[in-house]
Amino acid sequence: MKPIALDAMGGDRMPGVAVEGGLAAAREGIPVILVGKEAELHEELKRRGGSLDIHPAEDVITMGDHAGDVRHRRQSSIMRALQLVKEGVASASVSMGNSGATMAAALLVLGRLAGVNRPAILANIPIKRGFVALLDVGANADCKPAYLQQFAVMGSVYARAFYQLAEPSVGLMSIGEEPHKGNELVKEAHGLIAGTPSLSFYGNVEGRDLLKGVTDVVVTDGFTGNVVLKLAEGEAREIFSWLRQALTGGGLFTRIGAAMVRSALKAVAARLDPAEYGAQPLLGVRGNAFIGHGSSDSRAVRNALRTASKAVRTDLLERLGEGLSGISSAGKVP
Amino acid sequence: MKPIALDAMGGDRMPGVAVEGGLAAAREGIPVILVGKEAELHEELKRRGGSLDIHPAEDVITMGDHAGDVRHRRQSSIMRALQLVKEGVASASVSMGNSGATMAAALLVLGRLAGVNRPAILANIPIKRGFVALLDVGANADCKPAYLQQFAVMGSVYARAFYQLAEPSVGLMSIGEEPHKGNELVKEAHGLIAGTPSLSFYGNVEGRDLLKGVTDVVVTDGFTGNVVLKLAEGEAREIFSWLRQALTGGGLFTRIGAAMVRSALKAVAARLDPAEYGAQPLLGVRGNAFIGHGSSDSRAVRNALRTASKAVRTDLLERLGEGLSGISSAGKVP
Repeated sequence: MKPIALDAMGGDRMPGVAVEGGLAAAREGIPVILVGKEAELHEELKRRGGSLDIHPAEDVITMGDHAGDVRHRRQSSIMRALQLVKEGVASASVSMGNSGATMAAALLVLGRLAGVNRPAILANIPIKRGFVALLDVGANADCKPAYLQQFAVMGSVYARAFYQLAEPSVGLMSIGEEPHKGNELVKEAHGLIAGTPSLSFYGNVEGRDLLKGVTDVVVTDGFTGNVVLKLAEGEAREIFSWLRQALTGGGLFTRIGAAMVRSALKAVAARLDPAEYGAQPLLGVRGNAFIGHGSSDSRAVRNALRTASKAVRTDLLERLGEGLSGISSAGKVP
Repeated sequence: MKPIALDAMGGDRMPGVAVEGGLAAAREGIPVILVGKEAELHEELKRRGGSLDIHPAEDVITMGDHAGDVRHRRQSSIMRALQLVKEGVASASVSMGNSGATMAAALLVLGRLAGVNRPAILANIPIKRGFVALLDVGANADCKPAYLQQFAVMGSVYARAFYQLAEPSVGLMSIGEEPHKGNELVKEAHGLIAGTPSLSFYGNVEGRDLLKGVTDVVVTDGFTGNVVLKLAEGEAREIFSWLRQALTGGGLFTRIGAAMVRSALKAVAARLDPAEYGAQPLLGVRGNAFIGHGSSDSRAVRNALRTASKAVRTDLLERLGEGLSGISSAGKVP
C-alpha cells in the first residue's frame, strides 16, 4: 500500500499528536508520510526516538484562515498532502485542521468524481449494533434534491465497504414517515432516491430513528446533518455529565454503588466517543481525503490513519466511481 | 380563571387518560371542561367517581386523518375545544391528538396574532439548570428569514413568562458560531434577529450548545427543530437503554452496584422525560392552544393542563401581542 499523507500541522495540538499518532499507526504496519515543517517534525520524531518519512511544507492553514485561502497557499501542509494523493505518491490524506479549508483544498486539488455535484462529509454514528453512516454532516449547508440522491448512493457504497453489508438500507431524514412529510427539499429528493435502482431505500426516517439504527445509512442536507451530529455528540457528553453528578453527589450508599458500576459506565461512554473513527471521509472527490476534529489527540490521529487505510484496502474510491456511474441525476445540476 | 378546554378524544388512549388527567388537574384547582363524546365521558367519569363539565362533540379527528379535514368537521372535539377558546368560554385548549390537524384547526378558528406570518410550536428542552425553549419544532418545514425573527420574539416572550427570566438570551441554530456560517435562511435571519432591539441576541449556536444551555431560547426552522427534538428525546432513551443493558448484563459485582445507584439514575432519567411539560404551546395564534404527544398518559395530560393554566396566569397571550407589535418584519412576508 502507498503511504497515507498526514497533514502534521493543521489542528490544535500539532505537530506533537500527529507524530505520536503517526508512529502508532506505523507500528501497526500502516505506512505514513508526515507533511509539514521539516525541522519541527524532525525534532518531534527525535524526541520520541521514532522515524517516519517527511514531506516538507512550510506553510500552515490555521483555524482562523478562510477556506478560500488555500487557493493562494500551495505550500501549506494540507495542499501538499492532497497534492501527494493527486500525484499518486500517497493513497490517502488525513487532516485534523480547518475543515472548510480541507474541503476547499480537496476540491481544488483532486476535483470531483464523475456524477457528483457536491462532495459530502460522512460521519459514523455509534449505535448498539455498530454504526450508522450519516451524510452530509457539513460540507453543503444548502442542498438540491439531486445532491441528496448522490449522497444516498455514496453512503450506500460506503456502508458496503466499511460495514461489510451486502445491501445497506438507506433512510432519508425527515419529520414524518410518510413520503409527503418534510420540507420541499426532502419531498423532492424522496422521489429521486426511491427511483434509484441500486439503492435499498427504506423511506423517511425521523430524528429518533437515527440512534435506533432503523437504517444503515441516513441522508440529509449538510445543515441538518451538522446540527444532528453535534447534538448527538453533545447530548452523550451532557447525559454522562448529569450521571456523574448524580452518582458522585449522592449519599454514601449511592457513591459506593457508583464505584462498583464505574467500569460498565465507562464502556458505554467509550462506545459513544467520536474519536473511535478518528476522521470522516470527504466522499465525492477523486481521491481518499479524511477530515478529523481540530481537537484530536494522538489516539484519534492513529484511528484516522486506520480508517484511511481501510478505505484504501477496501477500494472505496473505485467502488464509489462504479456506484455513481448509474444514477440519473449525475452531473445534471450545476 | 376560565376553564381549560381539554380535547378528550384525540390521542392514543382517549378518553380514559383525558378523564383521569383532567380529574387530577381539577383536584389541584385547575378548572377543566372535557370536550368529546358525551356518553363515553359520562361513563369514564362515573367509573372514577369524579365530576367535570362536559362540552359535547361527537366527531373525532384521528391520527390517520388529514390536517385539512378539520375544515369540514366543525363538530370534531378539537374544533369544538378551540371554538370554546374563540368564544371566550375557555381560557386555553389542550389536545393530545393529530398535531397537524390541531395546528390547522387553531389557525382556522383562532387566526394569527398581528405580526405573525406563521405560528410555531415551542418545546421545552430539559437542561441541567432548567429548560431551554426551542422553536419551531415542526409547524413550518420551510421557513423564511422573517419567520425566524418572529419565532425569536415569541420565544423570548415565552421564556420571560415561563422561566421568569428578565432578559432571556436567544440563539440562532447554525453550523458555526460566526455570523457568516449557516445555510442561506440562517445567514439572512441572523441580520434580522440581530437588528431586533427587544431581543438579547447571543448569535449563532451549534447542535452541541443546545443542551449545554448556552442560551435560554434557540430559534430554528420547523424541519431542523423537529429533527433535533426527536433526536434529543430518542438519544436520551437510547443511552439509558445502553446503560440498563450494561448494568444488568454485567457480573454480580456490577449488578449489585447497579441496584445501589438505581434511584440516582432514575432521577436523571425523569428529568429528561418529555412528559414533564405535557404539551407544547402553538405560539402565534389568537388564543392559548397546546399540543401534546399522541401517546400521552394521564400524568402528561395533567402536566399539560398545568402548563396551559400557567400560560393563562402569566398572561402569555397579551405579552406575545405586545412583544410582536414592535418588530420590523411583522406582516411583510405573505
